[in-house]
Amino acid sequence: MSKRHLDRANDVIRPIEIETGFMRTAAGSVLYRAGGTRVLVNASVVDEAPEWLEKGGWLTAEYHMHPCAGPRRQGGAKKRRGPDGRATEIARLIGRSLRASILLEELGPRTIVIDCDVLEADGGTRTACINAGSVALALALEKMRLDGRIGGGVMRGLVCAISAGKVGDSLLVDLDYQEDVRAEVDLNVIGLATGELIEIQGGAEGAPIPRTALEALTDLAFSSFSSIVDAQRQALSGVSFDKIVRKT
Amino acid sequence: MSKRHLDRANDVIRPIEIETGFMRTAAGSVLYRAGGTRVLVNASVVDEAPEWLEKGGWLTAEYHMHPCAGPRRQGGAKKRRGPDGRATEIARLIGRSLRASILLEELGPRTIVIDCDVLEADGGTRTACINAGSVALALALEKMRLDGRIGGGVMRGLVCAISAGKVGDSLLVDLDYQEDVRAEVDLNVIGLATGELIEIQGGAEGAPIPRTALEALTDLAFSSFSSIVDAQRQALSGVSFDKIVRKT
Amino acid sequence: MSKRHLDRANDVIRPIEIETGFMRTAAGSVLYRAGGTRVLVNASVVDEAPEWLEKGGWLTAEYHMHPCAGPRRQGGAKKRRGPDGRATEIARLIGRSLRASILLEELGPRTIVIDCDVLEADGGTRTACINAGSVALALALEKMRLDGRIGGGVMRGLVCAISAGKVGDSLLVDLDYQEDVRAEVDLNVIGLATGELIEIQGGAEGAPIPRTALEALTDLAFSSFSSIVDAQRQALSGVSFDKIVRKT
Amino acid sequence: MSKRHLDRANDVIRPIEIETGFMRTAAGSVLYRAGGTRVLVNASVVDEAPEWLEKGGWLTAEYHMHPCAGPRRQGGAKKRRGPDGRATEIARLIGRSLRASILLEELGPRTIVIDCDVLEADGGTRTACINAGSVALALALEKMRLDGRIGGGVMRGLVCAISAGKVGDSLLVDLDYQEDVRAEVDLNVIGLATGELIEIQGGAEGAPIPRTALEALTDLAFSSFSSIVDAQRQALSGVSFDKIVRKT
Amino acid sequence: MSKRHLDRANDVIRPIEIETGFMRTAAGSVLYRAGGTRVLVNASVVDEAPEWLEKGGWLTAEYHMHPCAGPRRQGGAKKRRGPDGRATEIARLIGRSLRASILLEELGPRTIVIDCDVLEADGGTRTACINAGSVALALALEKMRLDGRIGGGVMRGLVCAISAGKVGDSLLVDLDYQEDVRAEVDLNVIGLATGELIEIQGGAEGAPIPRTALEALTDLAFSSFSSIVDAQRQALSGVSFDKIVRKT
Amino acid sequence: MSKRHLDRANDVIRPIEIETGFMRTAAGSVLYRAGGTRVLVNASVVDEAPEWLEKGGWLTAEYHMHPCAGPRRQGGAKKRRGPDGRATEIARLIGRSLRASILLEELGPRTIVIDCDVLEADGGTRTACINAGSVALALALEKMRLDGRIGGGVMRGLVCAISAGKVGDSLLVDLDYQEDVRAEVDLNVIGLATGELIEIQGGAEGAPIPRTALEALTDLAFSSFSSIVDAQRQALSGVSFDKIVRKT
Repeated sequence: MSKRHLDRANDVIRPIEIETGFMRTAAGSVLYRAGGTRVLVNASVVDEAPEWLEKGGWLTAEYHMHPCAGPRRQGGAKKRRGPDGRATEIARLIGRSLRASILLEELGPRTIVIDCDVLEADGGTRTACINAGSVALALALEKMRLDGRIGGGVMRGLVCAISAGKVGDSLLVDLDYQEDVRAEVDLNVIGLATGELIEIQGGAEGAPIPRTALEALTDLAFSSFSSIVDAQRQALSGVSFDKIVRKT
Repeated sequence: MSKRHLDRANDVIRPIEIETGFMRTAAGSVLYRAGGTRVLVNASVVDEAPEWLEKGGWLTAEYHMHPCAGPRRQGGAKKRRGPDGRATEIARLIGRSLRASILLEELGPRTIVIDCDVLEADGGTRTACINAGSVALALALEKMRLDGRIGGGVMRGLVCAISAGKVGDSLLVDLDYQEDVRAEVDLNVIGLATGELIEIQGGAEGAPIPRTALEALTDLAFSSFSSIVDAQRQALSGVSFDKIVRKT
Repeated sequence: MSKRHLDRANDVIRPIEIETGFMRTAAGSVLYRAGGTRVLVNASVVDEAPEWLEKGGWLTAEYHMHPCAGPRRQGGAKKRRGPDGRATEIARLIGRSLRASILLEELGPRTIVIDCDVLEADGGTRTACINAGSVALALALEKMRLDGRIGGGVMRGLVCAISAGKVGDSLLVDLDYQEDVRAEVDLNVIGLATGELIEIQGGAEGAPIPRTALEALTDLAFSSFSSIVDAQRQALSGVSFDKIVRKT
Repeated sequence: MSKRHLDRANDVIRPIEIETGFMRTAAGSVLYRAGGTRVLVNASVVDEAPEWLEKGGWLTAEYHMHPCAGPRRQGGAKKRRGPDGRATEIARLIGRSLRASILLEELGPRTIVIDCDVLEADGGTRTACINAGSVALALALEKMRLDGRIGGGVMRGLVCAISAGKVGDSLLVDLDYQEDVRAEVDLNVIGLATGELIEIQGGAEGAPIPRTALEALTDLAFSSFSSIVDAQRQALSGVSFDKIVRKT
Repeated sequence: MSKRHLDRANDVIRPIEIETGFMRTAAGSVLYRAGGTRVLVNASVVDEAPEWLEKGGWLTAEYHMHPCAGPRRQGGAKKRRGPDGRATEIARLIGRSLRASILLEELGPRTIVIDCDVLEADGGTRTACINAGSVALALALEKMRLDGRIGGGVMRGLVCAISAGKVGDSLLVDLDYQEDVRAEVDLNVIGLATGELIEIQGGAEGAPIPRTALEALTDLAFSSFSSIVDAQRQALSGVSFDKIVRKT
Repeated sequence: MSKRHLDRANDVIRPIEIETGFMRTAAGSVLYRAGGTRVLVNASVVDEAPEWLEKGGWLTAEYHMHPCAGPRRQGGAKKRRGPDGRATEIARLIGRSLRASILLEELGPRTIVIDCDVLEADGGTRTACINAGSVALALALEKMRLDGRIGGGVMRGLVCAISAGKVGDSLLVDLDYQEDVRAEVDLNVIGLATGELIEIQGGAEGAPIPRTALEALTDLAFSSFSSIVDAQRQALSGVSFDKIVRKT
């Protein structure tokens, strides 16, 4: 395979920039960039839990692709419509991933909503939303803790997510759009920086693939988590982060 | 009436900040702030005209309030739904206002879509979208001109929009949210900086009002257009703006 | 400009015919004709107020264009769909205009619904709905007063609405469809017969216009209110109208 | 059973009043009253046939209950929604009944749309719509014949429809609302005045009923067709009706 | 007319096969075949009654055509959508027919839902759903009786439904798809095996028909009820059916 | 952990029963049972490809949970609505998995639709749909081959799918509903019997899990593929299966 864009090595993720407090009206607000992909993620706290929930609280996510996130307006001149099947699937993945990182039973009868808006799409939007969402979630939880609505220690850790794939003979991490369309295998790995797995999802884009590829790609993904969590922690440097993370 | 927030005089608008190119994927992209109100407006060019249009092109607008734009998530924990009646009415106003500023017959069989996203809402979101939209439109038209898709002189001028209202005995321009909810009269005036009118819309918020108030408020609104157009022109300083404006 | 249809002078509105009690099942029912425009407006009283309303009552309006109101069936052979953007915008205008004419806090926890059905459309349908709606509202309020559900004096006055526009060099009041499509400026003015303003909405249909046109057209519109209120009062001659109007 | 309202005999239908040309914009427009039931039915001609139709034309119907057609606004203060299950079922019955009365293959690639709006509902609204619809259809066909779009003889005859039911021991024709809610059997019979059947639909409202009731009620319904067709023919007296009816 | 498929005589229905307990999760589950038509009908008991119901319980039905029930997938490659007008009309017929067979006031505040899924469609799907639905309903009622939720005697009898039609000069019962498309008259008759009528619905498929055809077809339909009820009773042989049927 | 239901060993899947040709109207029709889970899967061939597809054909899937598939009717007495988020996510997984098993470019401009209906739900419905879908797909492809619409060798192999999870200290394959709700980890593995991977999806149900669990569960899942493919091949014994599978 030819060189990656900007001479990036196969096992190196795109540079991450995180700006917190982008929307001052939200409990936690994060503008997140990874190369050409940019997402805006806001965490809100709503004082109601789903009807079917017997105790504790809940977390849910929405994923919206801005119609101008790509080179052509999505949908032509048509009005924006509700989320399509792809967006629904991704929103559910984001919700599950972030729910796994907190102690829902400690939230009280509340719902945390993670609103994800993709502003620029260049591959890896779902993992960007999870990485940004974990920061927005931490900000919202810290706000709740300071307001006395919850105690400390409700978060298990920051969530890291990244894609890995096989393009030609190369195993690549954090594929951009041009790499993604050429990949034979595409995997999304979500976990904690401490190496625990939250969710894995992916597979063959065309023909089925040897099982060995799965493990090599999973390794590659996990090895990038330290870079992600560094960027997340730096963005949270103003927050007494250790108070919201559960001691283990 | 008591003093305005931040000692603003009654006839002074909130400071405007305009950042262009916020979303690099859109033809024209503007992040616009007026005090506590912030909107993201993108202009896209789509190569199709509405079926009912016999010749020339068209411009249409969408207006979306981000659920986190206010102090509480709009809709609670519910999923975002399509635009409600208020959003529909505002989107139509934005579309009409910007259509009046260009020569549709010079566009060719194309539609320009103005996507407005309100990120923070503190009063005056519709006028903010029009002011920002006019800048985004100019950027998109200049891009079209450079690509050879249109000639020069297709814009009649930049569009300025502002609210004016009566709170107690005071006539105020550019009301923020706290002023807006207390206003007895609320007017939105849209026009060119040269003093021509595009649209006026507004009236009594409670009981009917003396007609004389209408004229005083219209004067007040028009007098603020020079400040608005200054901010718009500064944001467009890198653009050969005189080429897209029609000589008269 | 050539003569108006039926030799109407520029400042003369089309003859108004009002039939009350058209639908005997509604609290207030009005069949209203202004030249070639005909609307059916019914006012109903529902014993529930919107959830978000803290005290008093509410008024809301619907606007529906009958598919056979023009020379061709609107939508071809398709089934009727819900209101489009234009209908939504007009319904909101009707609702705001009639709300301004009553003391909502005197209604009790009720909602008055104004159902507007355009039967024949020849320009000026929104102002026809407001003029008819004000009569239907008065009928419903008088019925409520007689039933002892409200006291007297809950209405500020009858609401008058009319369009004014500029076609060529002529300033015209109450434009019909043929005039409307040729107008460079189109304004809708809504107020009380006593000269107070409720709402003004309108502007340039093509290029922006000199501001002076605005005032001339507003004058023209207000000067026609006496004819409108005469027709309304005549239609209400059987009603003890002075009891529902607030003494000032 | 006690006497019927206004001393009507069991086998006598309510007086019918038909006003043609009610909406001047429609090809055929009929305002129809049968006692306390009033419907507005318009027939439009659209120059397109359904995609699945291989040759000839089509006829379709819509049935809408006006929210103010009964003593309380249907749906409370909610906005009108699309047709419910009952309205869908009735619209299909109206469409089938009127289609059976014309030679679809003579229409050319067109669709006739029958828009039914129930203005006042006091029982028998579906049969009222069919009786009125047949008149509106005749008016539209005559207009098409005069315009040269179709030849003569495309109608098989006027369609008559009426309800019949059993209340206590009495067999009644043309039930009003109070009778309808107490009926044990309710039948709608649709046919030509010449005694041919188009559709029959009905049955037990509570417990199953002896089959003999079916025949007695069918007789009763057919015996009222001459009164219906008299009213229809009188309404069509200005139309050269014999030219649109097929000679047999 | 030529011979019927498989040498069936004109007054003979297609062989019926009934399998109960097809879906073990439902209160009453029936897989029903009549020649080439096959339907799956399930009866569920839900512990809530409609809001508008003042006392007793309710029964409602749904009718869904599986997209693969005919030789081509219905809707092409499109996703399944909700029920269309035809399905809505049929669901209402099924609901009315089965409601007439039980004493709703004995159910308590419950709703029985009859879910009909057409797996293979070869004419007569609505009557198949009613015949199968009556068996599923009996199974669900017996289960409720054994659980002590209702007493005995809540069913008036099994419901039989069949189509009859005229093809050329022949009067046929239980038309298959090929016969149905050629029929000039098509009637659906629903009743009890004891000869009482529940609902009759049908008529001319093209031109209106002599009334005499109606009676001959009704006779033909009723004469087939004994075969239907035999198949139903056999399917219910394991159920103490006499306990749920009302003694008369 | 206590014993599994019916003494099943941890690495043993539930017995599979496959009935082909269940719906004679579909190109490929499969009724599939795995213990208490039962799904009906039909494959249809539609002669149109998606608009956005440049060449070859496509495969898409739908997943519908029958409202009576569990112990209580899903949705209470409400009408069935379109697929929810979970169903959308699963339908996309089924579609991707089966697409990976065929050579889309050999299909011609066609779409194969896989309609999945869950009749009884006791865990593992998505993997059951994939296993059944692969058989239905093979049947449809063989039919296309015999009709001369495609050549041989268009299938890469039969697709096997199974869940694996961790309940307490035990690693289990093919979890039933009771096991599924208690699982800390839940993984779905989809591949070819030859050991190639198509898709993996799953993760922590509550707290994040050690990565080692992932590999043990993947092994467990793959080891069950031979049992699945045996059942699939037996169901296809009447089909010249080797002709539709690509030689490698």
